[in-house]
Amino acid sequence: MPREGRVNPAPPQFQRIGLLAKAAGANVAATLRAVAGFLAGRHHEIHLSASSAAILGTAPPGLPVTELVRVVDLLIVVGGDGTMLIAARAAADAQVPVLGINLGRLGFLTDISPDRATESLARILDGEYVEDPRCLLAAQVGEVGAPRVRQTACNDVVLQKWNTARLIEFETYIDGSFVNTQRSDGLIVATPTGSTAYALSGGGPLLHPALDALVLVPICPHALSNRPLVVAGDSVVEIVVSGHTDPAHVQISCDGQETVALRRGEQVRIAKHACGLRLIHPAGHDHYRLLRAKLGWSEPPR
Amino acid sequence: MPREGRVNPAPPQFQRIGLLAKAAGANVAATLRAVAGFLAGRHHEIHLSASSAAILGTAPPGLPVTELVRVVDLLIVVGGDGTMLIAARAAADAQVPVLGINLGRLGFLTDISPDRATESLARILDGEYVEDPRCLLAAQVGEVGAPRVRQTACNDVVLQKWNTARLIEFETYIDGSFVNTQRSDGLIVATPTGSTAYALSGGGPLLHPALDALVLVPICPHALSNRPLVVAGDSVVEIVVSGHTDPAHVQISCDGQETVALRRGEQVRIAKHACGLRLIHPAGHDHYRLLRAKLGWSEPPR
Amino acid sequence: MPREGRVNPAPPQFQRIGLLAKAAGANVAATLRAVAGFLAGRHHEIHLSASSAAILGTAPPGLPVTELVRVVDLLIVVGGDGTMLIAARAAADAQVPVLGINLGRLGFLTDISPDRATESLARILDGEYVEDPRCLLAAQVGEVGAPRVRQTACNDVVLQKWNTARLIEFETYIDGSFVNTQRSDGLIVATPTGSTAYALSGGGPLLHPALDALVLVPICPHALSNRPLVVAGDSVVEIVVSGHTDPAHVQISCDGQETVALRRGEQVRIAKHACGLRLIHPAGHDHYRLLRAKLGWSEPPR
Amino acid sequence: MPREGRVNPAPPQFQRIGLLAKAAGANVAATLRAVAGFLAGRHHEIHLSASSAAILGTAPPGLPVTELVRVVDLLIVVGGDGTMLIAARAAADAQVPVLGINLGRLGFLTDISPDRATESLARILDGEYVEDPRCLLAAQVGEVGAPRVRQTACNDVVLQKWNTARLIEFETYIDGSFVNTQRSDGLIVATPTGSTAYALSGGGPLLHPALDALVLVPICPHALSNRPLVVAGDSVVEIVVSGHTDPAHVQISCDGQETVALRRGEQVRIAKHACGLRLIHPAGHDHYRLLRAKLGWSEPPR
Repeated sequence: MPREGRVNPAPPQFQRIGLLAKAAGANVAATLRAVAGFLAGRHHEIHLSASSAAILGTAPPGLPVTELVRVVDLLIVVGGDGTMLIAARAAADAQVPVLGINLGRLGFLTDISPDRATESLARILDGEYVEDPRCLLAAQVGEVGAPRVRQTACNDVVLQKWNTARLIEFETYIDGSFVNTQRSDGLIVATPTGSTAYALSGGGPLLHPALDALVLVPICPHALSNRPLVVAGDSVVEIVVSGHTDPAHVQISCDGQETVALRRGEQVRIAKHACGLRLIHPAGHDHYRLLRAKLGWSEPPR
Repeated sequence: MPREGRVNPAPPQFQRIGLLAKAAGANVAATLRAVAGFLAGRHHEIHLSASSAAILGTAPPGLPVTELVRVVDLLIVVGGDGTMLIAARAAADAQVPVLGINLGRLGFLTDISPDRATESLARILDGEYVEDPRCLLAAQVGEVGAPRVRQTACNDVVLQKWNTARLIEFETYIDGSFVNTQRSDGLIVATPTGSTAYALSGGGPLLHPALDALVLVPICPHALSNRPLVVAGDSVVEIVVSGHTDPAHVQISCDGQETVALRRGEQVRIAKHACGLRLIHPAGHDHYRLLRAKLGWSEPPR
Repeated sequence: MPREGRVNPAPPQFQRIGLLAKAAGANVAATLRAVAGFLAGRHHEIHLSASSAAILGTAPPGLPVTELVRVVDLLIVVGGDGTMLIAARAAADAQVPVLGINLGRLGFLTDISPDRATESLARILDGEYVEDPRCLLAAQVGEVGAPRVRQTACNDVVLQKWNTARLIEFETYIDGSFVNTQRSDGLIVATPTGSTAYALSGGGPLLHPALDALVLVPICPHALSNRPLVVAGDSVVEIVVSGHTDPAHVQISCDGQETVALRRGEQVRIAKHACGLRLIHPAGHDHYRLLRAKLGWSEPPR
Repeated sequence: MPREGRVNPAPPQFQRIGLLAKAAGANVAATLRAVAGFLAGRHHEIHLSASSAAILGTAPPGLPVTELVRVVDLLIVVGGDGTMLIAARAAADAQVPVLGINLGRLGFLTDISPDRATESLARILDGEYVEDPRCLLAAQVGEVGAPRVRQTACNDVVLQKWNTARLIEFETYIDGSFVNTQRSDGLIVATPTGSTAYALSGGGPLLHPALDALVLVPICPHALSNRPLVVAGDSVVEIVVSGHTDPAHVQISCDGQETVALRRGEQVRIAKHACGLRLIHPAGHDHYRLLRAKLGWSEPPR
């Protein structure tokens, strides 16, 4: 059985469909319009995000993403992986499946090309799709037991030096066990989804999306013996900044999009999010074909 | 709950105990004698491996390892990780728990020091131990569906160039999906246990022993885009040597100890072994403390 | 002939000696006092830096570093590599030799231990020393041909992201030839001296101090194909931040100590400094012994 | 002044031209024929290697490479980098310039494409060329002071494990100074030219061809602290296999083409070859453009 998910045999349940796009541009508008037209022709109920409504210039203003995901059965995202990450965090909470149409470059999450969008959509709406569950991370920043900030990440939670050219020092604990004290530029805690993003730049391994695991990748560690660590998906990672490091020089960011400044006496707690992302692909999706395309690996010999 | 395993609350069941040592040497003999004396004093039934009997100079000749593991409740190994790997493969088949006393350097598998051996043993035999299950690999070499050779590995199955200074070319498949064609010196497929061995030398990440996963580490890949891959523990990895590569220049080895020459038309299939290793530690065993000691990581701040 | 330098056969010329220490602390004061006493006993003319005078509590206030280096024949630095970097940049301009006594951990630049300080000093002042010339970097930040800021670096000039969790994009030119466009967290341009510092954390190679070369190490590059580049010592490296990147999110730092914010339209130019550092070691200094001690490499077999 | 070399202003001296190709194939024959025809049309004196004569089917049998290089002013190689390496080692001894026309994939040494071969040749023969000097390595295997085997390498001299799945142990000395004891699969000692070959697969940095340096890259070192070492070009590297390692399990290879088995008591000595390779490129050759093409780096922004 392919790991990518099961082909859904039942009649599709995607009656109410949300459309989300962020960036303006001729491409985005054209693709959004084509998808909306296609869905209208199939008598789906269409809901627009505020940004999509603005791009299309429709009279009703559209909904904020967090409301949109509550009234649809499927969310279609038109854009790059950046837009998808925003959508994914909202959709996961509402447990709404998400489908990504990439604009410009093929993305790891937005793997449907615009020129085949309606064709792929038709198949998906006819039930020929696979659901590819992805875990998310829940980050808490604050005093132990009393988090001041809670955030969700699809790719990674990163603790990093900020506003300084010096390295930072911190201790890492996994499931309550002390791991090590590290002097580095920071630490990336990534999901399998995030293992192809910043964690890869930092020298981390590729994790299969179906693997229930997290990876911890040190950023420019000062010691030669630091290596990426892969731990079980239900691990709880806690990071405590050492007394030598001014917390003002430490920032926590989720998916490189939301950042939180650390305050003295606070720590960071990272664990799997209760809700995962329900990512939708056309049936026959092949994770390794995507890796080959994105990483420039050779194709199979004929 | 600590990941390292559960402290056994029940009365110990380790009545019949096997002793295994390989290398001769004053250290080995002294430790073996001390352990045997200690066990005799507690009225345990002691069984010796052939090599241990030779080292101790006992009259009965001792048993081959594969027979020894069938008549004991616990196997105690005195030696380095190399001896432990031999014992582990045999003990896994019989599902006999194994305990390692290291001689010389602290090992990842043999983590009881000789000078604290009887003290640690006393606690373990009183039930204060944790069982740390480790998965093993089953490698098959041969034609598809008709393996000529079957081997077991505790650390890793390695496909590597042999008798040549040129690189080899091969295709990798995971769960039937083509991954890539690789030109390199070979490929390491390792368990979490093996992630601290050859896979680490090859640039692989550290996998927590409790993680149900395998890691594939390319050896000196000719392409810059190759990275270690971490996949679910129930994945099946198949490796097919390309037509450009003479199979005479390819060898498969398990734990660096047993090697098999590939023949034309054959492929390699690697999957999790049906039986895992039941590794025993004294209660309170801490995997990260072992990593710190072995990798030279800093200790926790006071 | 050993690469580390020539043993000076001539009578020593180190009549006027400067003392520089930064951090207060019992250790620093005691070592400084011992060295000053030893030098006074040999009738050397002693000059103190402002900070050293404060530590020793002497009546004359001491000199700023930039003035101190103009009136002495040898500068002795008591402290860590951080203090040494400050001293080295000043001493290079004045072409004054520098000797480092480490406090706390052995440093790559401060390789005389405090407990052997007077013994080592005696030998050096008797002419038993080697001079180990080290190249420095000159960094210019500003519009082409009209640098706004000029700085000197002993280890490295680093262009890095600042105040952002996103990567930055920039083009690198070497001797006027375009090298590549890079999306990363930044770029380290290091001397051989700096190859054991931040460049090593970033994955760079170790360069022998006597090698006339620079190394460019990308920091967490987004592409898998980026590798450290080693180029001739007289290369001119120019870095131009791309239009997609807000210069407000880019900072240039020298030795991790001095940082400069980039302004729109500016670029960074890095070349070998006209003056090099004249580092002094006791005769018999062995670079590889220092590497072994610092990196934890094994000692030679007996 | 571009590092790649000087444009030759003088009238060309390439009257007598040697042609060398190895592999048979329609492509090779056609290119060889086109080049020979072009040269004949310009009244050059053409000399064929034995293999080229066989490919072209000419009556005179052609010369062995080592003789060919003695009677020509320029050697043109048609083939891949493998053929070029063979030619380079012979041409260096005779100090004959070499020009490479690649067949199939663009090579680092064979950077003229067949479809532009005559056009490029015309320019080169008119004097519009640059000479790009490359250093070579001289390897000696044998007892100290009495080498049994001497070989030349253009890319690298590699000491590697052979016929074993275990690692080997050896000591490295540079200019007589002990560097470290290493347990690994071997050691690559590479020229800047070789830094894009096997050394790159082993994790080494890219060295600019004009840099006078060697790089030592450990192959799968057992210690986490081993890093590539870049040393001055006139360094002498000596490798001594430890007593724990059976010399029968160690082999030395030059450019991956010639291998020598080590014997007990022997060591390996590697230094720069007295003669370098005189590589010819069309004027305007750009090393970084070649790197970008081969490594898939992005092109300059428009």
